[in-house]
Amino acid sequence: MKKVAVILSGCGYLDGSEIYESVITLLALDSNDAKYRCFAPDIPQMHTINHITGEVMPSDRNVLIEASRIARGDIADINTLDVNEFDAIIFPGGFGAAKNLSNFAIEGTNMSVTESVAKVAKAFADAGKPAGYICIAPALAASIYGGALKCTIGKDVATASAIDAMGGKHVECAVDDVVIDETHKVVTTPAYMLANRISEAAAGIEKLVSTILTMIK
Amino acid sequence: MKKVAVILSGCGYLDGSEIYESVITLLALDSNDAKYRCFAPDIPQMHTINHITGEVMPSDRNVLIEASRIARGDIADINTLDVNEFDAIIFPGGFGAAKNLSNFAIEGTNMSVTESVAKVAKAFADAGKPAGYICIAPALAASIYGGALKCTIGKDVATASAIDAMGGKHVECAVDDVVIDETHKVVTTPAYMLANRISEAAAGIEKLVSTILTMIK
Repeated sequence: MKKVAVILSGCGYLDGSEIYESVITLLALDSNDAKYRCFAPDIPQMHTINHITGEVMPSDRNVLIEASRIARGDIADINTLDVNEFDAIIFPGGFGAAKNLSNFAIEGTNMSVTESVAKVAKAFADAGKPAGYICIAPALAASIYGGALKCTIGKDVATASAIDAMGGKHVECAVDDVVIDETHKVVTTPAYMLANRISEAAAGIEKLVSTILTMIK
Repeated sequence: MKKVAVILSGCGYLDGSEIYESVITLLALDSNDAKYRCFAPDIPQMHTINHITGEVMPSDRNVLIEASRIARGDIADINTLDVNEFDAIIFPGGFGAAKNLSNFAIEGTNMSVTESVAKVAKAFADAGKPAGYICIAPALAASIYGGALKCTIGKDVATASAIDAMGGKHVECAVDDVVIDETHKVVTTPAYMLANRISEAAAGIEKLVSTILTMIK
């Protein structure tokens, strides 16, 4: 049975993982009879956002504990992730990818990926195991894989330029489609960088998941 | 276009809405080209649970604000819900239904439904509009509809007895199926009262959503 690690960054698109993208990823994996396990860094969230007003709330939260809501408690510290136990890795999006898994939201092209996350992402890259990056998460991939990674965040000009500036090679992509870098075995899809409704995000993510599973030897 | 109100109770199955059940409900509605709008009561959560340990955390949270994470911010106070604007209503499960939408988790068969929630649920019942109750939420339905409501929470003997004690008529049901009360136009499915994996919950919820949409005149 194919086994996929899913990396979460909290619970809610403004300060953590995009919930729809995460759930659709897990549902697509399970529907394809793949096993999955969720991981997140055990660190404080950058901040907590009231998702109605968009404003910061005075509530200190932990990325792993909040992400455990999406995983129904079945989650582990990313430091315990052993690349040898998994065939592939998937990063759902949400601002948590740019705030907790990296500092892209603040530093832009000068960003760095959170150390524990970079270590794991690089281990999958070095092992030649397929990786899926959804929504804004490809910004991390551009940094992890270095030069010439073909990837997409949809059509957002500013973010696409940032990816190119970090050495990636941004490719425009429709919401229901994926971009595949065969050399690096990286699959990306725009999801909520473009989606206007949940079924649009689902179409692209389901394609990403089935592509990743096909890539597993 | 058919329009469905979805009632959330927080964000996370131990103290709010079951996230998978909520997202799968929204995805099924959207995939069937139905419009939806999320609502939740603007009240404090009963408590906040660490979903890894299952223990109470010292974090005061608001049901509406936490539920807004699942709704990507597009949510309203349940007090503003006008039954005339919707064709049907759906309640996903999660302990939030038994802790925030009612006090079933504490009072058992002596439970009462939170006033703002009861008012809305009864308005749909009185208008003869279809209603879907998922997972543990049928415990509320038994109270709202009074005698002889045919419904299911799966196979859990204690909860099934509670529903019967409150005047309902519990019917055993498989995880991928629904129980339909044609008289009251109420559809129920066990979801995470029985599901061992997300695709099992999805099968029952997708059936519930399509049944509800078929029931709308």
